[in-house]
Amino acid sequence: MPQFDFEVITLGHGSGGLLTNKLLESGVFSVLKNPLLDTHHDGAVFTLTGPLAFSTDSYVISPVFFPGGNIGELAVNGTVNDLAMCGAIPAYLSLSFIIEEGLTMHEFRDILVAIRTAADRAGVQIVTGDTKVVEKGKGDKIFINTSGIGQVHPKAAISARRVTAGDKIIVSGPVATHGIAIMSVREGLDFETDIVSDTTSLNHTVKTLLDEFGEAIHLLRDPTRGGVATVLNEIARDTNLGADIRQAQIPVHDEVAGACELLGLDPLYVANEGVFMAVVAADMADALVARLQTLPHGDGAAIIGEMVADHPRQVVLTSRIGGRRVVNMLVGEQLPRIC
Amino acid sequence: MPQFDFEVITLGHGSGGLLTNKLLESGVFSVLKNPLLDTHHDGAVFTLTGPLAFSTDSYVISPVFFPGGNIGELAVNGTVNDLAMCGAIPAYLSLSFIIEEGLTMHEFRDILVAIRTAADRAGVQIVTGDTKVVEKGKGDKIFINTSGIGQVHPKAAISARRVTAGDKIIVSGPVATHGIAIMSVREGLDFETDIVSDTTSLNHTVKTLLDEFGEAIHLLRDPTRGGVATVLNEIARDTNLGADIRQAQIPVHDEVAGACELLGLDPLYVANEGVFMAVVAADMADALVARLQTLPHGDGAAIIGEMVADHPRQVVLTSRIGGRRVVNMLVGEQLPRIC
Repeated sequence: MPQFDFEVITLGHGSGGLLTNKLLESGVFSVLKNPLLDTHHDGAVFTLTGPLAFSTDSYVISPVFFPGGNIGELAVNGTVNDLAMCGAIPAYLSLSFIIEEGLTMHEFRDILVAIRTAADRAGVQIVTGDTKVVEKGKGDKIFINTSGIGQVHPKAAISARRVTAGDKIIVSGPVATHGIAIMSVREGLDFETDIVSDTTSLNHTVKTLLDEFGEAIHLLRDPTRGGVATVLNEIARDTNLGADIRQAQIPVHDEVAGACELLGLDPLYVANEGVFMAVVAADMADALVARLQTLPHGDGAAIIGEMVADHPRQVVLTSRIGGRRVVNMLVGEQLPRIC
Repeated sequence: MPQFDFEVITLGHGSGGLLTNKLLESGVFSVLKNPLLDTHHDGAVFTLTGPLAFSTDSYVISPVFFPGGNIGELAVNGTVNDLAMCGAIPAYLSLSFIIEEGLTMHEFRDILVAIRTAADRAGVQIVTGDTKVVEKGKGDKIFINTSGIGQVHPKAAISARRVTAGDKIIVSGPVATHGIAIMSVREGLDFETDIVSDTTSLNHTVKTLLDEFGEAIHLLRDPTRGGVATVLNEIARDTNLGADIRQAQIPVHDEVAGACELLGLDPLYVANEGVFMAVVAADMADALVARLQTLPHGDGAAIIGEMVADHPRQVVLTSRIGGRRVVNMLVGEQLPRIC
């Protein structure tokens, strides 16, 4: 384990003065080192050409360390995936911390290492950042914002306007895993399970699909907070079409399905991290799913339904036993701070 | 005053589901409306050419409403100014909220309106965003992250490497105003004053200087946390030069100077918002200051010293009575959460 000049982060580390510089030198810069970050300016300067995508997310997950990862890799993967969902190839991320005083340097370093590892895996660079510290009781260990920029893939044409009735709805893998992994360690909910979060970057897989299927991919979304059901409702709203989905075709790991039953939760509303949804041209859907199943994080991919002209702005589920019911957006809050 | 479906923001508004959508529709989208934001996707897509600057900052200022502004305009102005300090023309911002449950919709709307007004004034668009809600006691009313992208001005050549001995150090106006304005309303510190924060966007003024003086401007920095003294120390470190400054030439409003004396603070360490520092070629410095004095927020501009080959990495102040002393970086924390 590395040694630090100090064990615990205090308000002084957010002063902008000497202690902030020490925190950055011994922590952030040493772990995240790269030429753009090393300029130490108020921002990074680089050149990217063509249409760009820009996305932001603040991560407030609790607990900060969870089965399968920590808030650091979640913050990188989440924004990388948001860019991928725009049809972009993520390139540069910003990184901003709001630390509650009392976070230990060892915890902070573990988070930084997870950030570095996730960034390397996704092929992105952290190029600019910010660190603030708030008093005990005014935060919760650490909140992280990442914002990201990427170049839109030359073959991408992602837009709700391109979705038509008949398009197939695909999920890239089993749903509800992340949410159940977090629930399993939440105070008051603890239950025994081997389920770990599926947090990962999906950009390489999405890029391969865009390389090979291009404009046949009409829409991409990652069903994080609110789950598959909420995203489908947003797609139905934004396209003014209906969505028909079949329960039997929605992939869920057995253990996750069991936990959902135990907790009385519908997996369609549980948050995901390492899963994306695609709405694709009907004639290419089978080939795309077959290809996706050969790619990282895509082996559980399935067509779960299609867009329809009937019941515009409504999502209808056909259950395993053949009944049909309307699936609405998530109402209320299933589990706060899942990402 | 507008009416809302709900008076207070709750955890459910961070669910990603129906309540989040309601919060966004009735609050964020209605105030910040623009074509890129209205696509409702996970990110925004646009085209910018040439070298780009990218910057991020999280704002945790307390109190959220302060003399002269609120956290909303601070969050826009701060990131706009960071981009300007890179020699860039700010174009697009992301906006991410971490709200503590219990924030009222009227407070939130006042913050959104301040964001909109500041963005319009700076000529930037908010194009993508995120909203999270944390439990009471796990945040402090609201934290805001803004990240921004801009095109580097074609005549800009901003780099610590371009600074040489003899370069003049300029501040754009009276220092320490923002910090003293915040202190005046802090719990336990309350004192009577008419001092208001100088938070503002400086990008238009900086652009005019770059248009007219281009490469003569070697470095730009805004002395926020840690104040002028800390930024000068960072410049000395990054250039491996010394900095000589003269106390008598550092502009400070009388009332601010009085408050600093009362509180035992050195204005050189107090945070600024509407002030920038420039290190410029000696032969252009007088002309640049004269021009700056005619531009918005520049009427108090002054040359406060110069870079020197002596005492590398050290900042030396000549006092009003002629004594010389080393000015170090801010040590410890003068006032937490000043921005």
